[in-house]
Amino acid sequence: MTTLRPSKPHPTVSIQPPTADSAAQEDLGFGTKVSQQIRTRLLNRDGSFNVARKGLALQRAWNPFHELVTMSWTRFYLLVLGIYVVTNLLFASAFLLCGEGALLGAPGRTTAGRTLDAFFFSVQTLATIGYGRISPEGLAANTLVAIEALVGMMGFALATGLLFARFSRPIAQIIFSRQAVIAPYREITGFMFRIANERTSQLFEVEATVVMSRLEGEPSERVRKFNTLTLERSKVMFFPLHWIVVHPINEASPLFGLTAEQLLESEAEFLVLLTAVDETFSQAVHARSSYKAEEVAVGARFADMFQREGEALTGIDLRRIHDIEPASLPGSTS
Amino acid sequence: MTTLRPSKPHPTVSIQPPTADSAAQEDLGFGTKVSQQIRTRLLNRDGSFNVARKGLALQRAWNPFHELVTMSWTRFYLLVLGIYVVTNLLFASAFLLCGEGALLGAPGRTTAGRTLDAFFFSVQTLATIGYGRISPEGLAANTLVAIEALVGMMGFALATGLLFARFSRPIAQIIFSRQAVIAPYREITGFMFRIANERTSQLFEVEATVVMSRLEGEPSERVRKFNTLTLERSKVMFFPLHWIVVHPINEASPLFGLTAEQLLESEAEFLVLLTAVDETFSQAVHARSSYKAEEVAVGARFADMFQREGEALTGIDLRRIHDIEPASLPGSTS
Amino acid sequence: MTTLRPSKPHPTVSIQPPTADSAAQEDLGFGTKVSQQIRTRLLNRDGSFNVARKGLALQRAWNPFHELVTMSWTRFYLLVLGIYVVTNLLFASAFLLCGEGALLGAPGRTTAGRTLDAFFFSVQTLATIGYGRISPEGLAANTLVAIEALVGMMGFALATGLLFARFSRPIAQIIFSRQAVIAPYREITGFMFRIANERTSQLFEVEATVVMSRLEGEPSERVRKFNTLTLERSKVMFFPLHWIVVHPINEASPLFGLTAEQLLESEAEFLVLLTAVDETFSQAVHARSSYKAEEVAVGARFADMFQREGEALTGIDLRRIHDIEPASLPGSTS
Amino acid sequence: MTTLRPSKPHPTVSIQPPTADSAAQEDLGFGTKVSQQIRTRLLNRDGSFNVARKGLALQRAWNPFHELVTMSWTRFYLLVLGIYVVTNLLFASAFLLCGEGALLGAPGRTTAGRTLDAFFFSVQTLATIGYGRISPEGLAANTLVAIEALVGMMGFALATGLLFARFSRPIAQIIFSRQAVIAPYREITGFMFRIANERTSQLFEVEATVVMSRLEGEPSERVRKFNTLTLERSKVMFFPLHWIVVHPINEASPLFGLTAEQLLESEAEFLVLLTAVDETFSQAVHARSSYKAEEVAVGARFADMFQREGEALTGIDLRRIHDIEPASLPGSTS
Repeated sequence: MTTLRPSKPHPTVSIQPPTADSAAQEDLGFGTKVSQQIRTRLLNRDGSFNVARKGLALQRAWNPFHELVTMSWTRFYLLVLGIYVVTNLLFASAFLLCGEGALLGAPGRTTAGRTLDAFFFSVQTLATIGYGRISPEGLAANTLVAIEALVGMMGFALATGLLFARFSRPIAQIIFSRQAVIAPYREITGFMFRIANERTSQLFEVEATVVMSRLEGEPSERVRKFNTLTLERSKVMFFPLHWIVVHPINEASPLFGLTAEQLLESEAEFLVLLTAVDETFSQAVHARSSYKAEEVAVGARFADMFQREGEALTGIDLRRIHDIEPASLPGSTS
Repeated sequence: MTTLRPSKPHPTVSIQPPTADSAAQEDLGFGTKVSQQIRTRLLNRDGSFNVARKGLALQRAWNPFHELVTMSWTRFYLLVLGIYVVTNLLFASAFLLCGEGALLGAPGRTTAGRTLDAFFFSVQTLATIGYGRISPEGLAANTLVAIEALVGMMGFALATGLLFARFSRPIAQIIFSRQAVIAPYREITGFMFRIANERTSQLFEVEATVVMSRLEGEPSERVRKFNTLTLERSKVMFFPLHWIVVHPINEASPLFGLTAEQLLESEAEFLVLLTAVDETFSQAVHARSSYKAEEVAVGARFADMFQREGEALTGIDLRRIHDIEPASLPGSTS
Repeated sequence: MTTLRPSKPHPTVSIQPPTADSAAQEDLGFGTKVSQQIRTRLLNRDGSFNVARKGLALQRAWNPFHELVTMSWTRFYLLVLGIYVVTNLLFASAFLLCGEGALLGAPGRTTAGRTLDAFFFSVQTLATIGYGRISPEGLAANTLVAIEALVGMMGFALATGLLFARFSRPIAQIIFSRQAVIAPYREITGFMFRIANERTSQLFEVEATVVMSRLEGEPSERVRKFNTLTLERSKVMFFPLHWIVVHPINEASPLFGLTAEQLLESEAEFLVLLTAVDETFSQAVHARSSYKAEEVAVGARFADMFQREGEALTGIDLRRIHDIEPASLPGSTS
Repeated sequence: MTTLRPSKPHPTVSIQPPTADSAAQEDLGFGTKVSQQIRTRLLNRDGSFNVARKGLALQRAWNPFHELVTMSWTRFYLLVLGIYVVTNLLFASAFLLCGEGALLGAPGRTTAGRTLDAFFFSVQTLATIGYGRISPEGLAANTLVAIEALVGMMGFALATGLLFARFSRPIAQIIFSRQAVIAPYREITGFMFRIANERTSQLFEVEATVVMSRLEGEPSERVRKFNTLTLERSKVMFFPLHWIVVHPINEASPLFGLTAEQLLESEAEFLVLLTAVDETFSQAVHARSSYKAEEVAVGARFADMFQREGEALTGIDLRRIHDIEPASLPGSTS
């Protein structure tokens, strides 16, 4: 059986009990009820929360800017295309309602032809092209043109702002290693995971916080507790390559003496929070992830991900960030 | 009679006097005169200040950007529409002043017809459509076109910037429970209110400050004092659901031993300040509100707002954020 | 003779000498040579520095964005207009160089007429109006159109960005009272000045730093020293009205025992630095100003600037921010 | 032989060994392997990192916004021009594929003529000019126009956002003196370099961190160590002129007792990190640079760079920032 650090004669050492206050501080804002009752993970791998929020009249809760800025590029472009087509269809219908003489020079003679003429005239107006082969005739058509021009300009203004917002949004695209490991660390063991910056922009002052959450207490009245893990170093000034975040499992660690089985059985989850400064716009960025007990490889370590030419180190290979290799833990008999 | 915590034999315990210095620190910037003389609330429920500022030549005090960015969407769109119509009317008049031959190809023969032609030609120019059926003839009309094109482009540039600014402005739309409560809290009582994030974007590092302001001293020379209330926890790292902010009314609390009647009579007001970080753009956001004594329900607690499917917790229902239910306070005989 | 606080028997008490280290810390970055040799003020009333910086190849030192964003609106609009006219003149010349047939449909027959046609055709192209009465003919003219369209779009994009940048730039428009005063303060005296927020947007967490700079030491070897003045309160959470910043002249103050004449003679200057958070975009803002000794009224205080209706306080009148009234100082015999 | 401070009888004093912990803290995030194995400099003079990062599917690692915002203006404009031409070529080809009658009014009769017509019609459509001499005929051509108009508007929106982003990006253009010096400083010596603000916008709260990195230990097992150098002052409130950053080489300094030869031989590198606040937008800015041992002039000091008119100081001359002059060090016999 593999234990995390079984070298001293207390197979299941009790973890130092957090005081009521610090426990309250450390539930991170999930609230007592949620953290006790949610049986799956609190935080998903992509950093989103595993809880739902309902209610409120939709027009209040809905934050269109947030939606439009965070949706995928594919959805965004499809939405823009859809709005473009629908707007032109609406104005085309309105031009058709103005009667036959409203679009001077329109060649269409059939209903289909006139409909297409109206649609393409609308396109030329919304986009402010105005070839002039077709031009509006009469008060109704001219008024529609005035409205459509304003709609076109405001819509374009919106699209400009949204595109800029989408581009300039500070996102830390951090790659987290697929698994965390319990690896040898100096004379003892350590809980470790590996992160790297996926983007070409530099990150600064990267700071990590790791909180372990697990069920504790007697089987009859187990409650989920939160413990912040002390890190070997919690902040790096630069982040040009990768960083293996290390929590040394010494006697002060809440992991001290726990077995892999106990981690699994107590539904342990390691919540990871990163903050950093993105160089491009000196913006603060955030990243979150979590490791469930079953995503922690006990008795493994991260494989070297450096690239070499001969003896010289020339860089790192981000594709190898998830690579781990077996490592025997001190005191382990496996 | 309901008192907040009458368990010990001092029905109207005097509140620990703040030192001159800390009192000065805690009037929050309202100034001595204002906080003494204002008889209604200092802070409105929506977080605006209950004081007026006048004077200054208008062109200096007026901050058009602030106005244009913070006005309602309805007003904003009406303003844009109004400016669009007025600008076209002005240029239409100018085109009319250029004489009959200035708009080549304009079909209008009557005054009304010529006016409409000028207006719609202006639209086609301001929006840079330029169908060309009507085109400018002569120096005056062409110069007007050059000016209108520039005005159109600059106005459109402004609208683009304003739309983006309105959208990207960091606003924490926090819902505050309609009432605060004095509820049972562990062995004692607590002053509590409930907040939730109304928007779909996440907030982080939400921090609350609560200051109680009330008239103190002898009836003849009562002065308004400010006391910051100690909170059970003043900051949460995440804010996925709701948060009940709790000030425990222990012996150190300025609320200790006060009755509901005393709160009302001394014109107590609880000023709430929230700061947080909005995830979308990592921006700091602020929210403010206040509870007057008559908005504090003594002997009540917040009702559960969780949604359940069978045993499982599936989310919260924001519509129930204001729900309170009676709760008997320790030591209360009501 | 008026002294700032002559109540104890030491007419010219020596100011506590700052240590070499703190002095170094407190020259604020002006550098030893500059602060010793500049005989006028270090900081102008509007917060700009009173020192010049020359050299560097112009293309490196010149920061066009900073210029374009900080110049006055009048200059900005004139610049935009100028660039618009010049660009059209350049393209008009180019179209003329393409020969007579290049602008199909142009009515001008004289040189002046052809020049005007080319200019207005350029306007219609740069602004992407394109009426079409005049249209390009041949490779040269069409290529020019392609270039001008791109120039027009990029120029317009630039103007859009600049307008937004100018509007959204965080500026704290703080009004500083024209004079500072040495006024009665509790039992002693205080150095005071009054500030108010000129704009309609709210400022938060306003923080003030006041540094006194004056020549000290023997007449033969006087050097300029810097002393940070302790404030009665250096930060206010809100800033809805005005704020009188107060430095109490107690025994620890570097002003203690100094006469008005000594302040003048030692070329004293009070440097004021403000930082705050602007509510509209949660942006940090800065403001600076300074008071020379001759701008300090000794034996005066700030007049009330509140507006009243009957007994009730209804607001403040910003026009009265500079109003001071005589006040006799404790211990003063004037 | 010139030593940095040889006044006491220990020619090669050992530097105080950093503890394992602080050493870990001070490798700045380069990681142990990289900092041990890289034989050239860690940080280039322009602040970029001297390590490579490879791997990852390109579409993930590539951050187009970062590229487009940080590339040179020349490359940016060439890219815009290239995309403009290529897009028009693509649409021109598509219009040609629609057949001969698709572009009504196009004068070209030869293949070359028709191709040019299609290209320039595309320009007039993409830029939304629409002269109308050539207009689309039929479903295919009209649909292409609708698509091209949308592409044109979105592309223009993108260009607008990018131009603004490029302009408003916070960049501290700090000039670092080409060389650092070991100069006389009070009674001892100091490691110094000179910086100035190249731009016309003001910087505030400029803060410097200097870390010395060199190989230490026995020749057989030398490892690179990092030591943060204590500065005479690490922060200035204003930065109107220049700043000579000074590390006094006293007994606590890791440079104490080292010779110039030892610095060279142990591959010493001085990493410099600056942070500041840019006034224009109150944005945080960063600057980095480094000095290798061979870029440190031992026994030199920075020449005066002030401009004078007669006796009066009128400014500084940034062209002289790199000027150094010989200076004999205390205790040096050279």
